[in-house]
Amino acid sequence: MKSHETALRVRYAETDQMGVVYHANYVVWMEVGRVELCRALGVRYRDLEAEGGVNLAVVEVACRFAKPARYDDEVLVKAWIGVASPRLIEFHYEMREKESGVVLATGHTRHLFLNGEMKPAKLPEKWRPMFGIAD
Amino acid sequence: MKSHETALRVRYAETDQMGVVYHANYVVWMEVGRVELCRALGVRYRDLEAEGGVNLAVVEVACRFAKPARYDDEVLVKAWIGVASPRLIEFHYEMREKESGVVLATGHTRHLFLNGEMKPAKLPEKWRPMFGIAD
Amino acid sequence: MKSHETALRVRYAETDQMGVVYHANYVVWMEVGRVELCRALGVRYRDLEAEGGVNLAVVEVACRFAKPARYDDEVLVKAWIGVASPRLIEFHYEMREKESGVVLATGHTRHLFLNGEMKPAKLPEKWRPMFGIAD
Amino acid sequence: MKSHETALRVRYAETDQMGVVYHANYVVWMEVGRVELCRALGVRYRDLEAEGGVNLAVVEVACRFAKPARYDDEVLVKAWIGVASPRLIEFHYEMREKESGVVLATGHTRHLFLNGEMKPAKLPEKWRPMFGIAD
Repeated sequence: MKSHETALRVRYAETDQMGVVYHANYVVWMEVGRVELCRALGVRYRDLEAEGGVNLAVVEVACRFAKPARYDDEVLVKAWIGVASPRLIEFHYEMREKESGVVLATGHTRHLFLNGEMKPAKLPEKWRPMFGIAD
Repeated sequence: MKSHETALRVRYAETDQMGVVYHANYVVWMEVGRVELCRALGVRYRDLEAEGGVNLAVVEVACRFAKPARYDDEVLVKAWIGVASPRLIEFHYEMREKESGVVLATGHTRHLFLNGEMKPAKLPEKWRPMFGIAD
Repeated sequence: MKSHETALRVRYAETDQMGVVYHANYVVWMEVGRVELCRALGVRYRDLEAEGGVNLAVVEVACRFAKPARYDDEVLVKAWIGVASPRLIEFHYEMREKESGVVLATGHTRHLFLNGEMKPAKLPEKWRPMFGIAD
Repeated sequence: MKSHETALRVRYAETDQMGVVYHANYVVWMEVGRVELCRALGVRYRDLEAEGGVNLAVVEVACRFAKPARYDDEVLVKAWIGVASPRLIEFHYEMREKESGVVLATGHTRHLFLNGEMKPAKLPEKWRPMFGIAD
């Protein structure tokens, strides 16, 4: 499964009084990386919700912070798929400071496909090949 | 129309590297003050959406910042209703640091009632008296 | 004074349960547009703080919302300078949905230059020409 | 080591278009729970930074989501200390919906004490007993 890299620039809003990025924002950056990975795989997440009727609900998130990102840094969010089945999918992430290449953080998220009533659902077959799901 | 005061404590997440609260968070605090004013008036905003089928869409926000709030400060958000009709409503806000009483910011928001399709709607009659709407 | 346009993509984190972008996020987008305008004018805001010893503290923000931005929309933030003096500066903004060109919101922010002790200061001369400040 | 419970109310700003709380906000709630646990133990986190000259930098966060929190829910954040030494400290969290008592999420954060230059430091002795640190 290929990985995909997305660039973003640290916003002032994302810093805190320690002078670095507030840690919860890395979780938001994971979302940015995940969505752009999906797009690169041919899946517009917006369509998955609107046409496929499924949400990708986060059931687990973990992140290890190696070095703090700072205001105005350009950050590269590399994302790739780990486990994937019609019912659940796991994404992995590595975030680096673009200029130096230094790793800022690594992590993963685990998701269940849910329908509009927030009940477990199966990813419609149409989208499975894009995620590399065989079943 | 009476006013209502809500207390909140500044989160680390709300600060930025200037060492004070990032300005967009005052707009979120206005929401906190508005919702608690509504509750004090007998309107649970959640019910307005779920039962009344109307949203209170923000069409204008303005805020003047007098003195910066800091991490861990207790902030009092005073909110009251200005203009109110079945179609639109205006809320005013004053935010003060609790201990010193110093005014941090003042502002207002202007809202239109919208239905589920995001089209202008009238507030159902049931809720009008709580907002002091005569019509 | 020229204007500058910055593109950003709406994050899922920026939506709310109304199915559109939560209004306070437009204030964050103004920051994104302002910072990129500064960069286009030759001023890295990070340097202004680190080398110039001045912060650009927001003393006023106002925003009118015309049409809601939605998840995954590409948004263009156009920013330009209004009033500017060694002591204060005003930025104006227009946010549009890229594909349709529809205006989403307009607004402005007003800033004072403050020193490290959060006291009013004058923008060091070195940076004045970039902002079109004559004095 | 005793635990501490803090109540908060879900803000509209914290929801997303799935109609539930956006997952990164639970990480912010952990901060709220952690700070109030510290206060209950006699440590004002603000003082730790200002007087003690140490920051509590997050080096790891993990969260499992069991059931989504919804707008206007009252959430109880229970926090307690796991491992603790003069150099690092681990906090654990359980978040429940107040009315039903249903568990929403569980997680932990791991922190290093850093000095003002963001280098590893030891927690000053004065504060160790509050955290139950023997050394």
